Amino acid sequence: MSTPDSVGSGFDRLWAELEPVGRNPVNGGYRRFAWTEADVCLREWFAAQAAARGLDLVTDRAGNQWAWWGDPDAAVSAGDPGVVIGSHLDSVPDGGAFDGPLGVVSALLAVDRLRAQGFSPARPIGVVNFGDEEGARFGIACAGSRIITGALAGDRALGLTDADGTSMAEAMTRAGRSTAHVGRDDQTLARVGAFVELHVEQGRGLVDLGHPVAVGTSIWPHGRWRFEINGQANHAGTTRLVDRHDPMLTYAAAVQRARDLAVRHDVLATCGKILVEPNGVNAIPSKVTGWLDSRGGDPAGVRALIAEFTDWLSGAGASLAEESWTDETFFDRTLASRLAERLGEVPLLPTGAGHDAGILANAGVATAMLFVRNPSGISHSPVEFAERDDCVVGVHALASVVEDLAS
Amino acid sequence: MSTPDSVGSGFDRLWAELEPVGRNPVNGGYRRFAWTEADVCLREWFAAQAAARGLDLVTDRAGNQWAWWGDPDAAVSAGDPGVVIGSHLDSVPDGGAFDGPLGVVSALLAVDRLRAQGFSPARPIGVVNFGDEEGARFGIACAGSRIITGALAGDRALGLTDADGTSMAEAMTRAGRSTAHVGRDDQTLARVGAFVELHVEQGRGLVDLGHPVAVGTSIWPHGRWRFEINGQANHAGTTRLVDRHDPMLTYAAAVQRARDLAVRHDVLATCGKILVEPNGVNAIPSKVTGWLDSRGGDPAGVRALIAEFTDWLSGAGASLAEESWTDETFFDRTLASRLAERLGEVPLLPTGAGHDAGILANAGVATAMLFVRNPSGISHSPVEFAERDDCVVGVHALASVVEDLAS
Repeated sequence: MSTPDSVGSGFDRLWAELEPVGRNPVNGGYRRFAWTEADVCLREWFAAQAAARGLDLVTDRAGNQWAWWGDPDAAVSAGDPGVVIGSHLDSVPDGGAFDGPLGVVSALLAVDRLRAQGFSPARPIGVVNFGDEEGARFGIACAGSRIITGALAGDRALGLTDADGTSMAEAMTRAGRSTAHVGRDDQTLARVGAFVELHVEQGRGLVDLGHPVAVGTSIWPHGRWRFEINGQANHAGTTRLVDRHDPMLTYAAAVQRARDLAVRHDVLATCGKILVEPNGVNAIPSKVTGWLDSRGGDPAGVRALIAEFTDWLSGAGASLAEESWTDETFFDRTLASRLAERLGEVPLLPTGAGHDAGILANAGVATAMLFVRNPSGISHSPVEFAERDDCVVGVHALASVVEDLAS
Repeated sequence: MSTPDSVGSGFDRLWAELEPVGRNPVNGGYRRFAWTEADVCLREWFAAQAAARGLDLVTDRAGNQWAWWGDPDAAVSAGDPGVVIGSHLDSVPDGGAFDGPLGVVSALLAVDRLRAQGFSPARPIGVVNFGDEEGARFGIACAGSRIITGALAGDRALGLTDADGTSMAEAMTRAGRSTAHVGRDDQTLARVGAFVELHVEQGRGLVDLGHPVAVGTSIWPHGRWRFEINGQANHAGTTRLVDRHDPMLTYAAAVQRARDLAVRHDVLATCGKILVEPNGVNAIPSKVTGWLDSRGGDPAGVRALIAEFTDWLSGAGASLAEESWTDETFFDRTLASRLAERLGEVPLLPTGAGHDAGILANAGVATAMLFVRNPSGISHSPVEFAERDDCVVGVHALASVVEDLAS
């Protein structure tokens, strides 16, 4: 018989198992990048969790793992496909422990809770571990869900390279995974009647509202751009200031310009990544490559920022290229209403972060999200955190909505 | 019998031998870092050049190579130590072909020229290949000359690490070099009665003056500083602008501030190297580390810039640490006058670049430099260049001053 306390102790146990995997001992952050040793270790852990619960493990064409309670294909044949919960286990560089794993752990514990209650699902229930959600290694976020929905072609994905020049194909092969069938996977998608992703909140919405759990409504429009500023490599000690073509000065002005434009258009803009060539103390750089991340509640604001930033860069002799753009994504309104009704008094919140739930929503799957309160609002950082009590509330909320959806 | 043309053909031959070593095929720049395969290859090349000329090769306690024509220790005993010429063969990241190798090649060709003339030296003549002049791998420039003069302690040098965490001790060991006696080497220094380093000019002094060769007078005071800006890692899509502590914004302002201060104090300032943590597109950085290189004709100007920059950083919650500082270095005035007199109408020029000749000068060795015209003034870049005719004039100038000094 599962009690609130048994959820807590289950949470402690699973959390302790995950705690050391890919942890950076210097700052306590995580480096769990796709198809690395840490990632393979997490995949084995997930498989072991499925086995321990007698769930049937299926790995799809992109390498995402699905653990099924019940027969998902029989349900497809019967016209009533399953209810899937879960999230991802990979991380950004030096990311926190909660972003992703909280959703997977909560999903496993929700299954435990329902079984302990003696619940008998009318539809199969799946727990998913999406691969490469953060895109930290190969540059494209939600690669696992993008591949199976066809939003990212298998060939293109396999040809992506990491900072060391290793392709995704090589990385998958080294991790013992065949690359033969990587691509769109309609069979896998057909099994998903509904997807509910629980995730730690990545802002201060719930803190300000004083609630432990929210239902997600939408994902802000967001995009990534790369800007390249060419200069003239030269010696830092012998080149007069007037003779210089120093791209670092242009970069510095670009960072400030992006921020000014973000304030003016009431959107977010971040320059978090830079590549300097040759990056030597006594060398004027030959080239600086910067990246801009921009998002906002209003796509027109982001587009206006990008247009003005492009003009400004052009005037400085630099260029901007769009690496990705995702329009505002709305989760399924009917499903969100049903969750909100089931859970009673819960806030409805949008998010500025991309998620696999958004990719599936854009592919026509009925998706919803649950957010768990983050006391500091800080995410993608070693100090990212959620209180144990709030995590337990999250598991109960997730179990409750699955019970409703699978009845 | 050596003619101007035979110097030219000798130059073409040696230049062609060096041309492929450590060359980056993408941009034509060189990556010849200390104790790498490229460096070992260049050391073997130098040893073969010494052997082909019947010069005695001695490798000192820091791994610098000395090829002697005549017995340097007998000359020390006689109170009249030798005349040394040469430079270095390593490079900055994606550096040019001339910075360093021009001095080594010119020294070998000067020996050939003197021998072809039937010159019989009254003092031994040495050709030196200093190791790790650029400090590109372990961060300290002129490491080879600093170690033998005691300016850099052997233990400290061996403990320096490269970007991969490999220590200099490990790198030397892997390159087949014992680390047992790395340190100050008075015996080697005692053999150097005078040192003349020929180097491609790294600015536009000779272009503007219309001369192929100059005699160096001094090295500007110069230093390197590291500034660390701490922020708060957070998610680029979910953190409101007002909640951010983004160190990249501070870095951008610091780069512009350093430039403004350089203009105001009539010195040079360069921010060519940056380290961003975690350097992710969708992550507000937790920390940005920047480096500042500053130099100028007047040490007071550089010091004033650093004082104001430190104050500004402090106001922004960041800190500055001095990594190195070298006061203005004057080459030996008597030696410079003698070279200028011997060569006739040549300009006298200071330089903003550090050199092994400066380290030896500070250790009390009589040193001088010759600069060869650089048509673009560009250095530390794949496009760094000197005309073949100017290089030949340089060899003749070097042979002439060695003939004078060793008579």
